[in-house]
Amino acid sequence: MSESALTSLRTAVAGVSGYAGGELARLLLRHPRLADAPPVLLGRMGEMDAAPVALTHLHPQLSGLPHTDKLSVLPFEWVSLEQRAIDVLFLATPHEQSRAWVPAALAQGMRVIDLSGAWRLHDENHRAVYKFEDADPALATALQAEAVYGSPELHAPSIANARLVANPGCYATSVILALAPVVHGNIIDLDCGIVCDAKSGVSGAGKSLVPSNMFMQAADNLSAYAVFGHRHTGELYEQLHLTADQIQFTPHLLPIPRGILTTIYVRLKERVNRADMQSRFDDFYARAPMVRVRRSPQLPQIQYVVRTSFCDLGFELSSDGRRMVIVSSLDNLLKGAASQAVQNMNLMAGWPETEGLL
Amino acid sequence: MSESALTSLRTAVAGVSGYAGGELARLLLRHPRLADAPPVLLGRMGEMDAAPVALTHLHPQLSGLPHTDKLSVLPFEWVSLEQRAIDVLFLATPHEQSRAWVPAALAQGMRVIDLSGAWRLHDENHRAVYKFEDADPALATALQAEAVYGSPELHAPSIANARLVANPGCYATSVILALAPVVHGNIIDLDCGIVCDAKSGVSGAGKSLVPSNMFMQAADNLSAYAVFGHRHTGELYEQLHLTADQIQFTPHLLPIPRGILTTIYVRLKERVNRADMQSRFDDFYARAPMVRVRRSPQLPQIQYVVRTSFCDLGFELSSDGRRMVIVSSLDNLLKGAASQAVQNMNLMAGWPETEGLL
Amino acid sequence: MSESALTSLRTAVAGVSGYAGGELARLLLRHPRLADAPPVLLGRMGEMDAAPVALTHLHPQLSGLPHTDKLSVLPFEWVSLEQRAIDVLFLATPHEQSRAWVPAALAQGMRVIDLSGAWRLHDENHRAVYKFEDADPALATALQAEAVYGSPELHAPSIANARLVANPGCYATSVILALAPVVHGNIIDLDCGIVCDAKSGVSGAGKSLVPSNMFMQAADNLSAYAVFGHRHTGELYEQLHLTADQIQFTPHLLPIPRGILTTIYVRLKERVNRADMQSRFDDFYARAPMVRVRRSPQLPQIQYVVRTSFCDLGFELSSDGRRMVIVSSLDNLLKGAASQAVQNMNLMAGWPETEGLL
Amino acid sequence: MSESALTSLRTAVAGVSGYAGGELARLLLRHPRLADAPPVLLGRMGEMDAAPVALTHLHPQLSGLPHTDKLSVLPFEWVSLEQRAIDVLFLATPHEQSRAWVPAALAQGMRVIDLSGAWRLHDENHRAVYKFEDADPALATALQAEAVYGSPELHAPSIANARLVANPGCYATSVILALAPVVHGNIIDLDCGIVCDAKSGVSGAGKSLVPSNMFMQAADNLSAYAVFGHRHTGELYEQLHLTADQIQFTPHLLPIPRGILTTIYVRLKERVNRADMQSRFDDFYARAPMVRVRRSPQLPQIQYVVRTSFCDLGFELSSDGRRMVIVSSLDNLLKGAASQAVQNMNLMAGWPETEGLL
Repeated sequence: MSESALTSLRTAVAGVSGYAGGELARLLLRHPRLADAPPVLLGRMGEMDAAPVALTHLHPQLSGLPHTDKLSVLPFEWVSLEQRAIDVLFLATPHEQSRAWVPAALAQGMRVIDLSGAWRLHDENHRAVYKFEDADPALATALQAEAVYGSPELHAPSIANARLVANPGCYATSVILALAPVVHGNIIDLDCGIVCDAKSGVSGAGKSLVPSNMFMQAADNLSAYAVFGHRHTGELYEQLHLTADQIQFTPHLLPIPRGILTTIYVRLKERVNRADMQSRFDDFYARAPMVRVRRSPQLPQIQYVVRTSFCDLGFELSSDGRRMVIVSSLDNLLKGAASQAVQNMNLMAGWPETEGLL
Repeated sequence: MSESALTSLRTAVAGVSGYAGGELARLLLRHPRLADAPPVLLGRMGEMDAAPVALTHLHPQLSGLPHTDKLSVLPFEWVSLEQRAIDVLFLATPHEQSRAWVPAALAQGMRVIDLSGAWRLHDENHRAVYKFEDADPALATALQAEAVYGSPELHAPSIANARLVANPGCYATSVILALAPVVHGNIIDLDCGIVCDAKSGVSGAGKSLVPSNMFMQAADNLSAYAVFGHRHTGELYEQLHLTADQIQFTPHLLPIPRGILTTIYVRLKERVNRADMQSRFDDFYARAPMVRVRRSPQLPQIQYVVRTSFCDLGFELSSDGRRMVIVSSLDNLLKGAASQAVQNMNLMAGWPETEGLL
Repeated sequence: MSESALTSLRTAVAGVSGYAGGELARLLLRHPRLADAPPVLLGRMGEMDAAPVALTHLHPQLSGLPHTDKLSVLPFEWVSLEQRAIDVLFLATPHEQSRAWVPAALAQGMRVIDLSGAWRLHDENHRAVYKFEDADPALATALQAEAVYGSPELHAPSIANARLVANPGCYATSVILALAPVVHGNIIDLDCGIVCDAKSGVSGAGKSLVPSNMFMQAADNLSAYAVFGHRHTGELYEQLHLTADQIQFTPHLLPIPRGILTTIYVRLKERVNRADMQSRFDDFYARAPMVRVRRSPQLPQIQYVVRTSFCDLGFELSSDGRRMVIVSSLDNLLKGAASQAVQNMNLMAGWPETEGLL
Repeated sequence: MSESALTSLRTAVAGVSGYAGGELARLLLRHPRLADAPPVLLGRMGEMDAAPVALTHLHPQLSGLPHTDKLSVLPFEWVSLEQRAIDVLFLATPHEQSRAWVPAALAQGMRVIDLSGAWRLHDENHRAVYKFEDADPALATALQAEAVYGSPELHAPSIANARLVANPGCYATSVILALAPVVHGNIIDLDCGIVCDAKSGVSGAGKSLVPSNMFMQAADNLSAYAVFGHRHTGELYEQLHLTADQIQFTPHLLPIPRGILTTIYVRLKERVNRADMQSRFDDFYARAPMVRVRRSPQLPQIQYVVRTSFCDLGFELSSDGRRMVIVSSLDNLLKGAASQAVQNMNLMAGWPETEGLL
């Protein structure tokens, strides 16, 4: 399918009421290849009654865009998708629902891009944090083996041909893109471990009515959480081929709506100079249009990436060239979720990777 | 002087217009031992013309407190201090001014608590970041040797008798208090280095009209700066007896007015269990009323310490007991500056350490 | 009781878990007259199980203050209060609970300061917004008639002798204090109506887990709500002797934790000059230590009052002297709730009005 | 020129370094009709030395978009524009510069869209707040008479044919669009005056390094300013045909980066019902794609419009139908500046009004 580009696609988004789902709807509604094919919009399981809800009731900010004032969000029902012959289904649903729904969607011939953590982890020890109960374990195992980790900068060819793309976690994307150029180069002293100190805006925690998502708890504050063992850590182990002793990941909740900035500390096996390291990053991402490698003294800041589909990278070296700090930043709802999903769709359809994302 | 407590003190604050200076004025005006002795308030060198300015013009929020509506901020002049027989002079001035003024203040018999970086560093290599030009280098060297690093939790007896107290940096306080219990215990694997990832509110950068202090640059943002070699790093080396290769310190600018949270990553030489580590912290700070040791799962948050004089500490251990993450939080203008200075004054006067600070 | 000042009081606070309840606990714990008599702390009805909860579990920021680390919050039970012979009971509870509990508390000889809207409104039409179901309507009517509206600047003598003080609403305080000097002077053209455009931080909405209190809805936002008929409007009618046609009140939700700023637009019957108007305000509040009248060009800002117990007032006149804009600002949790309650307690005990509040 | 749509245009933007200039560059770079014709980018007078500066140095967030990494911002020089045969020049420059440059630009055959206040006001009394010194007063008078106020919803036909478009003020847009449907209908009781209470994010104040733009002054704060006589008031008088006694406008500074919400209070001559008023607004803006009329209980919020090119309107009526509160909201950098300028360009080129703006 990826070899000859498609003219358009019939898409559907499940879980439109959430933050990532809303951003995904916005991106698809403005996507130039989908100008005449607005996505079918669906809720989450258990969220809605039988009656459809106007999209602009859930997301008033989307009013006035093409199609939006006529679009409704429908209760999730397979039959409706079947009738509409959906080509690509985006799941912006809780991981339990994504895990449960993917087999049926694939069986109906849809290709799936799942934004949850349901299908990202191949090692069942890593996957244990999600506690799935698969209806057909053998089928789930087969689908898991088939699932492609949707990091376009690392796995573009597989994504182009995939039936099931597991869209990466927001934190994981910020770490993996920062470390891929150096971990693959075998220049890090892994015995001392890599430290990843990540900070995310509140939308990363989703739309649940829990105390930590309240304005009064998050505003004017900063807190660390899941100090050891955050769910995204397994993605780091698998994609970077590292062990728990080799990489430490600790997230913090920032008092801002969106954006992640991760500061990564590594010790190098041998002295490295700035120019070589810059070339290493530049070369690694030479054909990756959604990664911007900054140049010292300019380092990534959340302000540069928020509401964009880019991941920004930058680094500094100690004066002895033996220690490096890498800074990585992205918008958790875009490159950390919705725009990365569209980037994957573009690859699957044979379109330019940046289509609809600049 | 510390053996028999004083009934009151005559105090002066230079540099009242800044954020730390304003907080210091507020604390002294509300200090129960100074109820009848409001501080003499002075500007910075070069900041004011000859005419005094009403305190409430510079700090409208202080209006209505005892004395405040009658108080003026005077241009800095030695003669005025001499005539008023000041016992303790607080310098909330730029480090160049603090460096220049301390010799004269001591010569006039005042005791000095300096909130700048002018007198904190004993090793001249560390001090090089400040580029001082001492008028009388021999005297400066002698005074530097005499200066006491004003961390009450570490140096209370010396502070009680000091003529010159160098009040610690805000970042440095957050790191030193977090690491003192474990660095002194020789349980950290220093070969792998300690990583200190610090985040501070904007008031830490002072009141200068520079782009990085603008709302539009700081709000909804996070950025790393001074990735290697921040000025406070020398304090870490000296107070914790560590080398540059053993401790990495990187600060970030948070989109909030006040508060620091520092996340510290250490690898331990041997497996440690939670109860032992908790006891280590609890015991170390058993007689330190301004340090609150939290207990997992409760970790320090900026919200718990902001507008208080406390430093909060907490930690988590990895499941193998070989890695530890310490979280430290304080208000950069209080325990990181003004309240720590008052705490030092309390020690110097023989009063309870917490007087006027709870 | 107000004639001869008391040395101390036995106090209790019900509803400690909320924002105003937490601030009230903090103020009472630091109150110099209550140094040896910490308040009894109670939850809300239905909120807690039988077991007490540590105060610092609910409010980690209060740890380290006098008494706090030993204090527990108890389930609400009359018997416990009876045994402890409480003099003054503060109710920081939902209005239904305040309405239900006051008769019993008074019957037990306690004096009550109620922070809810339960007893503020004397006209039953105004009170209709609260939908009370009084167990003993006759008693409730009698108590309502006896209740004193707890605005110390307007009703100090009655408060001093009151058994039941209805602590004013936060918005209402900001409007009433701004308008009292001019409405009583009969200089406003009431035919054109007074417009009160109020803006409040999120804590004003309480601690409920509702979407409008979530960070993602409140941050980087501003919204009007209850455009006509906000609950506090009845207090304006009664305290200022105005009709709905004479005063328009519309609140907005600000993206900040605390603070109210209200902008009030009036048309004057005759030309007024600045000096006369300034005198009018200055004179009206000459003996009101918690009201600070600013002087043009300095106007109240939320930053000047937040975390203080003051209400700030200021005004500007049009060049023709026929239109006036009054700006009023206070901290909704302090002068708008907890510190005003303490101010009332001070009056009831015969202590200086500012005791424990500066 | 407007009758037959153009295929493309050669554009230039002066004042790219500012916030509105940066947004304008972004919109033009992504404009589908200008895909092969990126704008020429120029600085302000006096801002730059001779050497060009990379666009992404001034606006790092724009990196990675089409053309951006090759674009430089040039010092302002007429010769460069002349050689490039610019069709439309956008001036995002201070009003003094816009006033000075427009005559030359028009003389060279360019059409100009000026985002400053230089050419908005026809009555010289209103214009007095800007204190211009025209080099050729007669020419300036003639050009002023020719200038079209660039409110597409009110003056589309004139804009389509204009040589000089004076892009409206951000506050003025929010008020004018809210009041146009009712002021023109002669249903307001103007004797009592209209009250416009406006609140704007900090970007509205521009990029100057002044204390009020600092994070520490703006964050967690709200303040009123220019209580009487803000510069945009003249636009209200002229566009709505009102006098100073008939409309009161007071702005406030919100602690957010972008967005305006204005609350407008009017008294009606006669009782009005909701359905009629809704129709009045709906009809008035039936062919205005950038105005979204909301329907009670949904009212405009800043969150719905920020980073969009829309102005949202909504209203509530008192129960007696005699008082109305209108709420208006827009992004001050977009519908209040850059996107409104692009909307005007679209009209001038004969393109759909929304081109490049959804």
